Amino acid sequence: MLVIMRDHASDTEIDHVVNLLHEAGAEAHLSRGEVKCIIGVIGDRDVMYALDLEGLPGVEQVVRVLKPYKLVSRDFQADDTVIRVANTSIGGQAFAVIAGPCSVETESQVLETAQAVKAAGATILRGGAYKPRTSPYAFQGLGEAGLRLLKEAGDEVGLPIVTEVLDVRDAETVASYADIMQVGARNMQNFMMLEELGRMDKPVLLKRGLSATIEELLSAAEYILKGGNRQVILCERGIRTFETYTRNTLDLATVAALKTLTHLPVIADPSHATGRRDLIAPMCRAAVAAGADGVMVEVHPDPEHARCDGPQSLPPRDFDALMVDLVPRIEAEGRLLGGEE
Amino acid sequence: MLVIMRDHASDTEIDHVVNLLHEAGAEAHLSRGEVKCIIGVIGDRDVMYALDLEGLPGVEQVVRVLKPYKLVSRDFQADDTVIRVANTSIGGQAFAVIAGPCSVETESQVLETAQAVKAAGATILRGGAYKPRTSPYAFQGLGEAGLRLLKEAGDEVGLPIVTEVLDVRDAETVASYADIMQVGARNMQNFMMLEELGRMDKPVLLKRGLSATIEELLSAAEYILKGGNRQVILCERGIRTFETYTRNTLDLATVAALKTLTHLPVIADPSHATGRRDLIAPMCRAAVAAGADGVMVEVHPDPEHARCDGPQSLPPRDFDALMVDLVPRIEAEGRLLGGEE
Amino acid sequence: MLVIMRDHASDTEIDHVVNLLHEAGAEAHLSRGEVKCIIGVIGDRDVMYALDLEGLPGVEQVVRVLKPYKLVSRDFQADDTVIRVANTSIGGQAFAVIAGPCSVETESQVLETAQAVKAAGATILRGGAYKPRTSPYAFQGLGEAGLRLLKEAGDEVGLPIVTEVLDVRDAETVASYADIMQVGARNMQNFMMLEELGRMDKPVLLKRGLSATIEELLSAAEYILKGGNRQVILCERGIRTFETYTRNTLDLATVAALKTLTHLPVIADPSHATGRRDLIAPMCRAAVAAGADGVMVEVHPDPEHARCDGPQSLPPRDFDALMVDLVPRIEAEGRLLGGEE
Amino acid sequence: MLVIMRDHASDTEIDHVVNLLHEAGAEAHLSRGEVKCIIGVIGDRDVMYALDLEGLPGVEQVVRVLKPYKLVSRDFQADDTVIRVANTSIGGQAFAVIAGPCSVETESQVLETAQAVKAAGATILRGGAYKPRTSPYAFQGLGEAGLRLLKEAGDEVGLPIVTEVLDVRDAETVASYADIMQVGARNMQNFMMLEELGRMDKPVLLKRGLSATIEELLSAAEYILKGGNRQVILCERGIRTFETYTRNTLDLATVAALKTLTHLPVIADPSHATGRRDLIAPMCRAAVAAGADGVMVEVHPDPEHARCDGPQSLPPRDFDALMVDLVPRIEAEGRLLGGEE
Repeated sequence: MLVIMRDHASDTEIDHVVNLLHEAGAEAHLSRGEVKCIIGVIGDRDVMYALDLEGLPGVEQVVRVLKPYKLVSRDFQADDTVIRVANTSIGGQAFAVIAGPCSVETESQVLETAQAVKAAGATILRGGAYKPRTSPYAFQGLGEAGLRLLKEAGDEVGLPIVTEVLDVRDAETVASYADIMQVGARNMQNFMMLEELGRMDKPVLLKRGLSATIEELLSAAEYILKGGNRQVILCERGIRTFETYTRNTLDLATVAALKTLTHLPVIADPSHATGRRDLIAPMCRAAVAAGADGVMVEVHPDPEHARCDGPQSLPPRDFDALMVDLVPRIEAEGRLLGGEE
Repeated sequence: MLVIMRDHASDTEIDHVVNLLHEAGAEAHLSRGEVKCIIGVIGDRDVMYALDLEGLPGVEQVVRVLKPYKLVSRDFQADDTVIRVANTSIGGQAFAVIAGPCSVETESQVLETAQAVKAAGATILRGGAYKPRTSPYAFQGLGEAGLRLLKEAGDEVGLPIVTEVLDVRDAETVASYADIMQVGARNMQNFMMLEELGRMDKPVLLKRGLSATIEELLSAAEYILKGGNRQVILCERGIRTFETYTRNTLDLATVAALKTLTHLPVIADPSHATGRRDLIAPMCRAAVAAGADGVMVEVHPDPEHARCDGPQSLPPRDFDALMVDLVPRIEAEGRLLGGEE
Repeated sequence: MLVIMRDHASDTEIDHVVNLLHEAGAEAHLSRGEVKCIIGVIGDRDVMYALDLEGLPGVEQVVRVLKPYKLVSRDFQADDTVIRVANTSIGGQAFAVIAGPCSVETESQVLETAQAVKAAGATILRGGAYKPRTSPYAFQGLGEAGLRLLKEAGDEVGLPIVTEVLDVRDAETVASYADIMQVGARNMQNFMMLEELGRMDKPVLLKRGLSATIEELLSAAEYILKGGNRQVILCERGIRTFETYTRNTLDLATVAALKTLTHLPVIADPSHATGRRDLIAPMCRAAVAAGADGVMVEVHPDPEHARCDGPQSLPPRDFDALMVDLVPRIEAEGRLLGGEE
Repeated sequence: MLVIMRDHASDTEIDHVVNLLHEAGAEAHLSRGEVKCIIGVIGDRDVMYALDLEGLPGVEQVVRVLKPYKLVSRDFQADDTVIRVANTSIGGQAFAVIAGPCSVETESQVLETAQAVKAAGATILRGGAYKPRTSPYAFQGLGEAGLRLLKEAGDEVGLPIVTEVLDVRDAETVASYADIMQVGARNMQNFMMLEELGRMDKPVLLKRGLSATIEELLSAAEYILKGGNRQVILCERGIRTFETYTRNTLDLATVAALKTLTHLPVIADPSHATGRRDLIAPMCRAAVAAGADGVMVEVHPDPEHARCDGPQSLPPRDFDALMVDLVPRIEAEGRLLGGEE
């Protein structure tokens, strides 16, 4: 931590800060210039986080240099985390394609989609049973009945499934059906949920919040790892900006940055990020090229009648064409769809 | 709802949209120009929300004109909602000053603060027992022990208390101590929590999410009202923008806008919005002038040693000076601190 | 400046940075912890700005602690700058109300507006002759003819005028009519324009860019002061955020923050910030309370037929009512409309 | 244009809007539901842009459906614009790699860079002679001397050059050296500059403003085309968001979206977008995959001693490695570096 004093801060002010630091068990190293004094602070993570020095007399700015996370960091674990679900993997050499409908609606809808995405090469089936909707008047999902339909469809075609857990009280129920538990963007900082999932032995797909920084995303993942669950997949799904042409702004530089900062797999979700069917294919291509470990794509057998997110869902034939295009790109990056041969 | 067709959309495309609308039970009114055709859609709220037309061939844009909320709207209820807790009120003529520490730390800390803020004129005592923290290594609050200390302090000085419910599973516990249940910014779209609070008979203080639009905030409140609980207080606490000098950007125009859009009381939280002690007083003054129904201010007897948010906490003597300045301003707006004489 | 090295940076990496610093004429002070080494750098402003160390091996982050501006700072000049134009002032005790049409359209329109705003108590007349418009097909202003009409109206009613200079080549022409030269938000970082205005002896009203930080706004002002022109008025006019209900987000905390950071007068422009007529009055009230040195309000005798910004313009009777409300508030803050008695 | 009336707007209010529309020469088509009345407005672009109806009694929202641009649109010209400079092209099948130093510093620096980037396969040489700098104390470029050095280096190695015009008064001078005139992000809405460049017969590289929407970028380009100059290249260089890990947020979905909206070539600038050397290669790869017509990369022979943007500049050997990686990717997309064989 660094404490930057105001120009010409008095000795009394400086001493006061130094005393507080010593009191808290930290070391203080002074650098004094003609106008500025800077105090370098050395101590352990817990001490640092207990100190709030910004408001002290003479203090201009406090810069934290210890990151608020540890276990998720590449410094802590250099090798890629590879997450294995059923017969497929995510991370390392393995590239995942997660596809399926926004929400589970009917048995035939989810089964038809499952068959189509499996045939096209998807490695994991997605589908929402509990839907977070801005308006209480919008379709909220089928609940446990939806989980059952999704699992049956996954079993039928031989794909593991990922689905969102919206309520911490449903975590056990969701876990009894799902292979991967998804935490949605709106719940990225639902710390109680993160702690609960940290105690479970089930991979977690953690979506970046709409206005979450990289540091906040990694800190949210840290909650899960700290609880003992090391199987976390990060997902960039677009951040909220001033641009309204796309629903959100897909931040692919963050995908590349995360690959250097953490050992966890990182995937991209162009469907939610852009909200526009015509941008899904180019953004999947870009995600592969940027180094993502997977993509997540919404597919619906009849997007015009989808109960949710129709405009951003691909019909099966478009998803098929997308996969024909993507697979050689994935391989050209030295990756394997779903992992080892 | 309006469907704006692409330039020179074909008759087939237009007919297709019109047929889908009729199928869904909506009426379609066409306006045709030389290059553009626009379809006005008339139908009820549920039909509208089941329709996702953006992806159809020939469709350029869909504009929703029905709002995703109803019960919270001024159109639904013209008169201000006034919320009464213990012997004080929020809304209508009543202006609330909610003050207290960021987090409850010790019995003496919270009692000392309670006495100070009561003496200075605060109408409600705040304090966090469950703290949402970005890092899992930061202080997470005292939990139920904190609730007990807060309640004892409130009882001792005669102030009702507000505290955050962080986990939906703790809602009953929090309700057994608190007079007002706070939903934090990170949980604004924790819909399960909102539904739970909608079933309870306890006022809710709903904070705007860091990147939530006005429409999303009102829709979140709608979840609570739809469940039967009409006692919701909205709180603007700063939105996330590119500016880093302040922690967030206090959006006072939204306070003024909300007062026209909804009958619910609206307060401002300059402490969290700015994150800087020196900006709290001017932003409280501005909030009063902008028409807020209250302000929320962090006060700590010894900010330098606060375990959380010290830099933005006022020491008691500064809070006292703030109140001396604010009370005449509140009265000059025709408001009464805490409500009727 | 502080150089924060990556965890466990090697001695070679640290030495390399230190050598570069010495080479550049700066001093380096090391603080070493178990995992982190931090280098405090002391040197003069020019040396600091010539150093780009972020890309060096082992360097994690560089924190600049010297601000990129000097002359505009309160540290450089503690007393408020008061700008005098004709018989009125801005800054210090003087509060300015700048009012008039978005664009000058006709002689009668501008004269009628001038009479109305003068009668209501405005201290400066505004009006655009050169209009920056997103679309090349929108009305671009009357040019020099507009300047002439504005000046005639100002002279007629006895108000100094402020108008935007859009093209650096027009600076002399605009200066020959205007009392204050306005730099619009889109030109805040048109450095050539700023330098040109820095060479002139005419007050400048500098509007904050839509996505400009406080530091960038102050640096832009520094360009003008560095050229020799010390008469700069800063104007907060809303920043671009994700919220679309208002045109932009009025950032009043920045007004309060600027008052502590700089000696220059700071005004607010609720018309452009909100883009909504109904929010102008509450935001003017909030600006006064937040400590602004003035407000800028668009007034049009017939907003429905305005060629620009009608939706955010007040008709004269509403402006009159606004002034009746504002004047006592201005005085309650210990300010005087237009300055000394 | 659509005018959405407030719920239960009165007949008088509706008639008033309809009358204003007729008066302005537009047609009005009414769609009336139980609570809402919507008015579809048909008329020509100029009439539409002269109308500002948002403030009228009973009007809730006005939705513009005619875009503020025309000439730049794919609807106006379906075929890709291909821009030819010297012996190389941009657009259509031709992929451009623009490389060179942030700023021209010395003869040897620019020549050495030119030789290196030419050898590696770059098709155009970049370099700044006039530098827009936030602080007036930072290095501002060599001016015309820099232009001369850049041109000499380009001539020497046989590459056309692109450089920024910062001051509209320098446009002729810059044009006498440069093959392509660059408009920087801060000048994207310097409409006078755009108009001046519209009158010239020289390709323009127009960078997206830090907070410019797609519509604003296209409208800025429209200014140039409207003046008669059809040779415009658009450049996505990152937008300003809340994320601070990267300097800005590279918005590749906008690159893909622009390719559908306009016939103009679209390139990406990962150097400025990310501000981090380690993210340039992955973002170049992603840009190629997203369908960009080119990339712009900063290269400096000695980034540690660069006078500007060192941290984001590649040394020649890294640029060389980048090109070895990129060229097969460019060809895999069916593109040719620099155009026809």
